[in-house]
Amino acid sequence: MMVDVPALVEQAREGRPRAVARLISLVEGASPHLRDVMAALAPLTGGAYVVGLTGSPGVGKSTSTSALVSAYRRMGKRVGVLAVDPSSPFSGGALLGDRVRMSDHASDPGVYIRSMATRGHLGGLAWAAPQAIRVLDAAGCDVILVETVGVGQSEVEIASQADTSVVLLAPGMGDGIQAAKAGILEIGDVYVVNKADRDGADATARELNHMLGLGEARAPGDWRPPIVKTVAARGEGTDELVEALEKHRAWMEERGVLADRRTARAAREVETIAVTALRERIADLHGDRRLTALAERIVGGSLDPYAAADELVAGLTNS
Amino acid sequence: MMVDVPALVEQAREGRPRAVARLISLVEGASPHLRDVMAALAPLTGGAYVVGLTGSPGVGKSTSTSALVSAYRRMGKRVGVLAVDPSSPFSGGALLGDRVRMSDHASDPGVYIRSMATRGHLGGLAWAAPQAIRVLDAAGCDVILVETVGVGQSEVEIASQADTSVVLLAPGMGDGIQAAKAGILEIGDVYVVNKADRDGADATARELNHMLGLGEARAPGDWRPPIVKTVAARGEGTDELVEALEKHRAWMEERGVLADRRTARAAREVETIAVTALRERIADLHGDRRLTALAERIVGGSLDPYAAADELVAGLTNS
Repeated sequence: MMVDVPALVEQAREGRPRAVARLISLVEGASPHLRDVMAALAPLTGGAYVVGLTGSPGVGKSTSTSALVSAYRRMGKRVGVLAVDPSSPFSGGALLGDRVRMSDHASDPGVYIRSMATRGHLGGLAWAAPQAIRVLDAAGCDVILVETVGVGQSEVEIASQADTSVVLLAPGMGDGIQAAKAGILEIGDVYVVNKADRDGADATARELNHMLGLGEARAPGDWRPPIVKTVAARGEGTDELVEALEKHRAWMEERGVLADRRTARAAREVETIAVTALRERIADLHGDRRLTALAERIVGGSLDPYAAADELVAGLTNS
Repeated sequence: MMVDVPALVEQAREGRPRAVARLISLVEGASPHLRDVMAALAPLTGGAYVVGLTGSPGVGKSTSTSALVSAYRRMGKRVGVLAVDPSSPFSGGALLGDRVRMSDHASDPGVYIRSMATRGHLGGLAWAAPQAIRVLDAAGCDVILVETVGVGQSEVEIASQADTSVVLLAPGMGDGIQAAKAGILEIGDVYVVNKADRDGADATARELNHMLGLGEARAPGDWRPPIVKTVAARGEGTDELVEALEKHRAWMEERGVLADRRTARAAREVETIAVTALRERIADLHGDRRLTALAERIVGGSLDPYAAADELVAGLTNS
């Protein structure tokens, strides 16, 4: 199918949701237009502030995301929402299960909401999400909220793609320990104790404060992650959360941290794309038959997988 | 440190747990002896039957694993257990949290239990688990049980490394839907409804039967995944589970499926190792400075990540 990439990009910048959707679909899949689209987007990116939201199921991630959308809309900002579900094979504009709250914003032209599946993607999350972020950025979103719908190790990956990472907890879920176990406690720039009207909210905040050593002395100018209490379902604390985000952003800009983070993010992105390209080249060069022949020798015990990999790589880099 | 690889392998084959532990540590990390170890193991592998156990938290995976260990021990088999936790940074011989039941077997010389973390591994699960399986196989384990401790997409990956995949469910957990959502329903060769003494066990089995279309006609000779009801904590149904596993194994051997699965597994393993090697080569060739320079141009908008990746790959394959 013919695709007029410059026209699509132009329409996306005007805020037309169909053009944005089309562009994300083009960069998500292995479209022949992928490279044209990415080249066209490059000079238009860098304006968006990317906020990642992570936390265990039940802490109120989608409610908090929705509350943040409302807050940023009141400030006149254009907002993009990327809901990433690493376990789902479904991608696209459809809203997932408990994301119905988001439908509050579905008719607002200043909000673009996209769900994204990463299961089955060659490079998984590391490959798919940055490209969608790039489209939303180029389309003129001021703020992009990236929320994981699933659980697990991918959360850390999501966080690494954000300018600011928000880690959400809720009282009485044993979340402190869970989060520590999953390694997500270290990644927060801002912490939220949601459902703060429930018993145990203060205890959760204290536990968090203790685990993160927030009471300890820091070098002057270092960032001290704030803990914000919210009741996202009623919009309570959302203004304080936005304030904390903006403070972190200002701190990053002042100290050059924002540019450093974005450079590190871009470097990882390049590496992932390069490795994916090499992986495809392995498949192209050798075909299934060659790889199968090596695999059969491994199963037969006459070759070990490292020696087999050496043969594959040698074939690749000498050609 | 000097490592006498042939002596270690010999000791592992005699069933000495320290030698097995040492070998797994060597293949898990980036040891300089990795290649020697893998080459020494190659001709000794292929004897073990690898069973993967997956399922949501709370279905009784570790209890079921423990019950299977007991059953196979009664049959005089040597058993290896690999408990993989994709979210944990801790690897080694230590038993994890609720795996204390496993301590029943800790003093049995015919059982080797190993917990394995994959967070932080370059190639993650796909890279780390097959190598540990290879060590246990070469060490003379007749059966290797691979159990995920965590949750999420890695379960499918674990299952892809097993000869037979067991998917566990429990009544009244909404597991049917959860499993379907996570995509693990399709991967079972054998299904277990554990905690079958609870209300709703029959309903869960029926729901599963329906979702999998097990009632539908199949081509003669096709495998029809059985649903086994167990109460693993009391060892009930474990013999039936072992029988179902052995039936699946016999069916795979008869139809050549076992060899095909193992070949496919080895092919994926080779590919993962090759890609990891190329990724390391990218890092070696260009150094951080080169990659950072490309990344800075991306952040500045003068380059897109695909064009940057092309530059990286070109540098790699022309050298």
